[in-house]
Amino acid sequence: MKIAFQGEPGAYSEAAIYEVYGSSVEVIPCESFENVFEAVNSGTADFGMVPIENSLAGSIHQNYDLLLENNLSIIGEHYLRIKHCLITNQGVNIEDVKKIISHPQGLAQCRNFIKSLKDVKTEPVFDTAGSVKIIKELNSLIVAAIASRQAAEKYNMKVLLEGIEDNPENFTRFLIISKQAKVPSGDSKTSIVFTLKNEPGALFKAMSVFALRDLDLTKIESRPLVGKLWEYLFYIDFAGSISDEKVRHALENLQEYAQSYRLLGSYSRHRLDIKK
Amino acid sequence: MKIAFQGEPGAYSEAAIYEVYGSSVEVIPCESFENVFEAVNSGTADFGMVPIENSLAGSIHQNYDLLLENNLSIIGEHYLRIKHCLITNQGVNIEDVKKIISHPQGLAQCRNFIKSLKDVKTEPVFDTAGSVKIIKELNSLIVAAIASRQAAEKYNMKVLLEGIEDNPENFTRFLIISKQAKVPSGDSKTSIVFTLKNEPGALFKAMSVFALRDLDLTKIESRPLVGKLWEYLFYIDFAGSISDEKVRHALENLQEYAQSYRLLGSYSRHRLDIKK
Repeated sequence: MKIAFQGEPGAYSEAAIYEVYGSSVEVIPCESFENVFEAVNSGTADFGMVPIENSLAGSIHQNYDLLLENNLSIIGEHYLRIKHCLITNQGVNIEDVKKIISHPQGLAQCRNFIKSLKDVKTEPVFDTAGSVKIIKELNSLIVAAIASRQAAEKYNMKVLLEGIEDNPENFTRFLIISKQAKVPSGDSKTSIVFTLKNEPGALFKAMSVFALRDLDLTKIESRPLVGKLWEYLFYIDFAGSISDEKVRHALENLQEYAQSYRLLGSYSRHRLDIKK
Repeated sequence: MKIAFQGEPGAYSEAAIYEVYGSSVEVIPCESFENVFEAVNSGTADFGMVPIENSLAGSIHQNYDLLLENNLSIIGEHYLRIKHCLITNQGVNIEDVKKIISHPQGLAQCRNFIKSLKDVKTEPVFDTAGSVKIIKELNSLIVAAIASRQAAEKYNMKVLLEGIEDNPENFTRFLIISKQAKVPSGDSKTSIVFTLKNEPGALFKAMSVFALRDLDLTKIESRPLVGKLWEYLFYIDFAGSISDEKVRHALENLQEYAQSYRLLGSYSRHRLDIKK
C-alpha cells in the first residue's frame, strides 16, 4: 500500500500515516498538497493523508478546495498530537545550542521555550523535518532544530527535549483520501460541503434536517466565497454513516434547500479521548 | 492616535491600519499578537489591528483565544486584499533575479508565478516585510522579495511586478480591538463566542434565537475544545448592533442555552464589495 503526503520524510503528515497504517507501509513525499491529490488521482498512491484543521491554526481551506476540485472521497480521519522536539546532532547538550531553526510555525509554537534559553537565535526554514536534515548535513554542534520525534529518528539525531510547545493542546486532524468511497458502519462520521440560497433563515432550515433526526454535528463552519457577496460555503461533519437510512433521508432533505451540495465521504470516527 | 500591530513596518497589518485610519496615524509594531493585546491593555496603544481570518488559510484561533483571555472589545473590522509584489533594489530587472525570499506563506501563495521563472531559487524568512529589509541591506542585484506595495514604499524599493499571487481571491479580515466598547448604529455586525451544554439539538436551539428574529448570520464556526470531549466553542457573527432591542433579546435568549457566553463587540460592517 502506498500513501502520499505533503512534506519531507519525517513530517507530521508522515507520522500520521505511520500511526494509522503502521511503519511498514510505503510513503510518497510530495512537494505540495496539489501533488498529493494528483498522486491519488493518477493511482501513483492508493491513499493520501492531508491535514484539514489544527487546534491552534484553524481549518486549512486549501485542502477543502482541493477536495471540491477533485473527485476523491474521505475514507478516514486521524487526530495527531503535535509534539515538538528540540533536536541536535549526537553529543550536543542544551548549553551548546546557540541557534534554533524550524518552520516559522514551529518556532512560533515554542516561543516561550525559546525565550527561556539565553542568547539563542532563531532562523526560519521551509519545514520542520527539513530543519533536521540541515543540521545533520552541516554536522553542527551549535544549531538545533524543532521537529517531530519521527524526524529525529529518520536522520538518527538526538532528541534533546520533547514537548517544548507552549500550548500542549496542539492537535492536527488529518483526512485520508481515496478514489474509492467506503461505507462504514458503527461509530462513523460524514462530511459534506454545500452552499445555500440567499434567503433569510436558510442555514437554520439546513440545520433542521440534522436536528429533527437527532444527528449530532461535530463541525460546522461557514466560509465566505470571496467576490460573491452573501454567498457562503458551509462545511458540516456529523455523527453517522450513509449506510444509515436516517442519514440518507437527512441528506436528501438538505438538497431541497442547498444550491450546491457535495458528499465528501463517510468514515470511521477517530475518538480524541483514546489518543490522550 | 496610536495603533498596534504584529509584524515589521510594511506588514499587511500595517497596511490595514493605513487603509482605515489614513497614513498620518502613529503605528506601533509588535513582535507577537500577545504584545498587541498587551499594548492595548496597558494603554500604550489606543487600538490594535489583528488578523482574524484569511480567505485561503482560515480562522486564526490564536487571536480568538487572546480575545477571550483579554477583556477587550471589537470596535471595527476591515477586509484587506492581499496583493503580493515582487520587490527588488532599483535598477534590477526580472531577468536578473536568481533568488526570491519571503515568508513561507508568501512563497507558497506565489508558487505558480515562481515556477514560471527559470532557475530561480527560494528561501524562507520570518516575514514578508522583513524580506524587503534584507535585500535592501544586502543591496542585492540578484535577490528579490515578495511582500506588499507598502513594504516596497517603506524601504524605497522597486515594485517589479504586482499581484503575483496564484489565487487573486486572497483577503484577510482584520479586527480593530479597544479597551472601550462602542455601540454602532446603521449597518453593523456583532461577534459572540459561546459554549453549549452537551444536549441533542443544542446548537439548533442556539441558532433559533437568531433565525426566529430574522437576524442574518455572517459567520458560524465550531471549534473543538481539545481535551474536553464533546465540548465546542462556537464563533458567531451576525448582522445587527446591540443598540437594537431585537439583538439584545436574541442574546438574552441565547444565554438560556449557553454554558458560557461572551460578547466580543458590535461594530460597523465593512462591505467587501466596496473594496473590489
